[in-house]
Amino acid sequence: MAQSQATKGLPTAIDLGHHINSKSRARHPSPLKDIIQFMAVDDMVSLAGGLPHPSFFPFKTVTVTASPPTAEGSPCLLELPLDGFLQYGSGTGNAQLRAWCREFTQRVHRPAYADWNVLLHPGNTNAWSKVVGLLCETDDYILCETYTYPSAQAFWIPLGIKAAPVASDAEGMRADTLAQTLRDWEDTHPGTRRPRVLYLVSVGSNPSGVTMSTKRRQDVYDVCIEYDVIIVEDDPYFFLQYPEYDSGDSVTEGPEFVGSDEFLRSLTPSMLQFDHQGRVIRLESFSKTLAPGLRLGYFVANPLFTERLLRATEVETQDPSGLSQALTLRLLQSWGIDGYLGWLQGLGVEYCRRRDWMIDAFSQHFRVVYAAEATGTLVAHLGDVPIFSFVPPTGGMFIWACFNLAQNPAFEQLRHDENVVDPEQVMADQLWRQFAEAKVLLTPGSYYHPWQGPDKVTTNARGATPSTTYFRFSFSMTTQEETERGIARMAQVIRASWKLEQ
Amino acid sequence: MAQSQATKGLPTAIDLGHHINSKSRARHPSPLKDIIQFMAVDDMVSLAGGLPHPSFFPFKTVTVTASPPTAEGSPCLLELPLDGFLQYGSGTGNAQLRAWCREFTQRVHRPAYADWNVLLHPGNTNAWSKVVGLLCETDDYILCETYTYPSAQAFWIPLGIKAAPVASDAEGMRADTLAQTLRDWEDTHPGTRRPRVLYLVSVGSNPSGVTMSTKRRQDVYDVCIEYDVIIVEDDPYFFLQYPEYDSGDSVTEGPEFVGSDEFLRSLTPSMLQFDHQGRVIRLESFSKTLAPGLRLGYFVANPLFTERLLRATEVETQDPSGLSQALTLRLLQSWGIDGYLGWLQGLGVEYCRRRDWMIDAFSQHFRVVYAAEATGTLVAHLGDVPIFSFVPPTGGMFIWACFNLAQNPAFEQLRHDENVVDPEQVMADQLWRQFAEAKVLLTPGSYYHPWQGPDKVTTNARGATPSTTYFRFSFSMTTQEETERGIARMAQVIRASWKLEQ
Repeated sequence: MAQSQATKGLPTAIDLGHHINSKSRARHPSPLKDIIQFMAVDDMVSLAGGLPHPSFFPFKTVTVTASPPTAEGSPCLLELPLDGFLQYGSGTGNAQLRAWCREFTQRVHRPAYADWNVLLHPGNTNAWSKVVGLLCETDDYILCETYTYPSAQAFWIPLGIKAAPVASDAEGMRADTLAQTLRDWEDTHPGTRRPRVLYLVSVGSNPSGVTMSTKRRQDVYDVCIEYDVIIVEDDPYFFLQYPEYDSGDSVTEGPEFVGSDEFLRSLTPSMLQFDHQGRVIRLESFSKTLAPGLRLGYFVANPLFTERLLRATEVETQDPSGLSQALTLRLLQSWGIDGYLGWLQGLGVEYCRRRDWMIDAFSQHFRVVYAAEATGTLVAHLGDVPIFSFVPPTGGMFIWACFNLAQNPAFEQLRHDENVVDPEQVMADQLWRQFAEAKVLLTPGSYYHPWQGPDKVTTNARGATPSTTYFRFSFSMTTQEETERGIARMAQVIRASWKLEQ
Repeated sequence: MAQSQATKGLPTAIDLGHHINSKSRARHPSPLKDIIQFMAVDDMVSLAGGLPHPSFFPFKTVTVTASPPTAEGSPCLLELPLDGFLQYGSGTGNAQLRAWCREFTQRVHRPAYADWNVLLHPGNTNAWSKVVGLLCETDDYILCETYTYPSAQAFWIPLGIKAAPVASDAEGMRADTLAQTLRDWEDTHPGTRRPRVLYLVSVGSNPSGVTMSTKRRQDVYDVCIEYDVIIVEDDPYFFLQYPEYDSGDSVTEGPEFVGSDEFLRSLTPSMLQFDHQGRVIRLESFSKTLAPGLRLGYFVANPLFTERLLRATEVETQDPSGLSQALTLRLLQSWGIDGYLGWLQGLGVEYCRRRDWMIDAFSQHFRVVYAAEATGTLVAHLGDVPIFSFVPPTGGMFIWACFNLAQNPAFEQLRHDENVVDPEQVMADQLWRQFAEAKVLLTPGSYYHPWQGPDKVTTNARGATPSTTYFRFSFSMTTQEETERGIARMAQVIRASWKLEQ
């Protein structure tokens, strides 16, 4: 009902049925589930279901204590509803929880079309596998960022699917490059189908840390209309948005709490807000906002897509865990939408603090200044030698650092050794091992290379900038002291490797 | 440890790697997960993980009250462990719960080879989708029972996979027919790959209700060795085994409780007990023994297969819900293995009682006698007219009734109407609708027809016995009074349809 009032006057989704792949088209509704409608008839004796009798479920009550949504509140004591949550579900997930997700989506994202739908799923990993199962054919290409989430790729690579990476800058994926990639497709990739799916982590991207700007979102959306591309917005970090880094700011204070509406206005909008055609599939997750162990999230998509995703759900997973659903529903009911928004705002404050810890630690060991030539990029120097550069994130948990190897003597040697095929990668492996031996663990940039086939693996063949390599820094798990210790160790390794004075 | 002691002297699994399909072969370990081993190094500062900080999980304590395992006990108060269960897992599932499943498997199934492994999954629906993803290629055939579980089929049909049904009798799938199907494959299905996977619900089968005998299991296993077939035993009803139906028995008493070892000896063994090569994949589920809403179960399979299934788990689902894992672990720890076996024995008693309610209700409205020609089959007559026949189940929740339409006047008319392509199906649809209008809901047999392609859909083309059709009766959900009412209504419809005196 909230949806129907709020969406008055908005268009309905255009017909995007031609995007549904052959496997998904071939799915029929599970007949066992169809019969359920007859069970509702008054006085019906149903000998049709195959359900275990609920009196044989051993769980009688579940009581949970939970944090208050904000520091002022008192702890919540939650009695979980168990009726219906212990039995088989219908595939859609619990109706009350779905209604909550619908109301929340309307409040937060205000989609630009009327008939969007919501379907629960057991986490974004599974949600992405279902979306590939909905849209992609074997040997397709998927548009993605220059560096992309490896687990998403690991699902699609065995299907013969390849990545079509599109360059990004400090505002996220470039719309002009996206348009060019699509415009030139037949020339650059003769004999292959032009990509129809864009995979996007558009807030605090993993690994790049970048949040796509509002303007860029509009531009990317327009390109996707022009070339009929479906946008899959995998957005677990959406609510971990926070203000820009300010080196003068005291890190202990962090941003101030504001009201829900002001908080929502402070967030970069999701692609849904531009989506007047229904071509965005949003993968929403509670993993980063409540707990990954819930294995719970939801799709927001046009009703044609959610219907096909429901067919896949029936035969691939069924409903998410009933306990996870019951717990999430009860917590969200207890907190209310405004309470949950307060909780989310608090999370942003915490991750912002951690981002600041890390960049401050960089500043203790490097001379960190804004790059002259690239907007919004900080460069960490040792003396006059630029070591690595990064866009300070305004969301998520990651700093994605581009290491400049040009002035590293070991790299210079490698670069002139004709037996070394990919000197950047050899140097990156060496550095990673040296970091690990000095007891600081980073994630190698190579994990995030989009798979473009066996002929496009080296730095050169991938078309990456020569003499560079990437590492991802995660600031979510360490204390301030650990962060400082880790960065100190890394600086030590770098000084030694670059043969700079101690 | 329990495993290594108990399996001393047993062979290890033979190499069945050639069964792994091309997609599964192409899976690489998730690199993000590989890095985890380095995190364990003492004093390591890890900036590598992408995990949300556990201090931001709002759930502090979860307390559950649960039934005692048997009537004599007192209710259990369980404090769930949350540490580790709210965070991302590694894909394998919690180590303690896996160890419990391992110990339980050894105690119950005593597999005939040494190096079997256990991997958690989020329910048998998902487990089966992963097994198809492990073993089957597009356009393969899967061996199954003459009537098979529709949701299993609904997953494989869109992949172009077809069923190769094998006839069953009161002891389950026939080993001789299985051997013949495989022996004659090239003649009967030229140009296709001989089936390599057997899908089996071998206890209280859905829909047939039949439990495969011990002798038949050995014979089927031997055929599968001869033709190099992998057996997938989807066995949610294993612990819902109970004694044979005895019309003289008072239904209210039910079987007596016995000790755990005697209980285990009373159960038909699973295929694992014959599996000295590692060619059985068992899909174990807590859905029918604890609650479906847990979405929790586990694979038992050879280590080559569980490793590949883990790779699929990493990119398709990740660990099952941490709450479901924590709750199940805590309950099973609290009950102990013997307690759980007592609980399972109690379930068998309950489902046995319900089976008896239904067959007794048949006897109130029909003359139910053993068939002369088919061992173990009961036939329900009205007067001298045989209406339906069934094997009284000794496990599970279902009675699978073969309706004999030969003496139904409406069917006679349909059979002589040359415009009617499939008179049995038309008659079945009519009957189902008449039952539903009389307020008794059965599941139509057509739901369980194995999909053999569009040319094998009619009763005739499927090679089914002429003038017969099936309905499935589920006795799990109704009270004794409801069961009686439902069967009375059905009998009324049958009398009218068959034009028999009231």
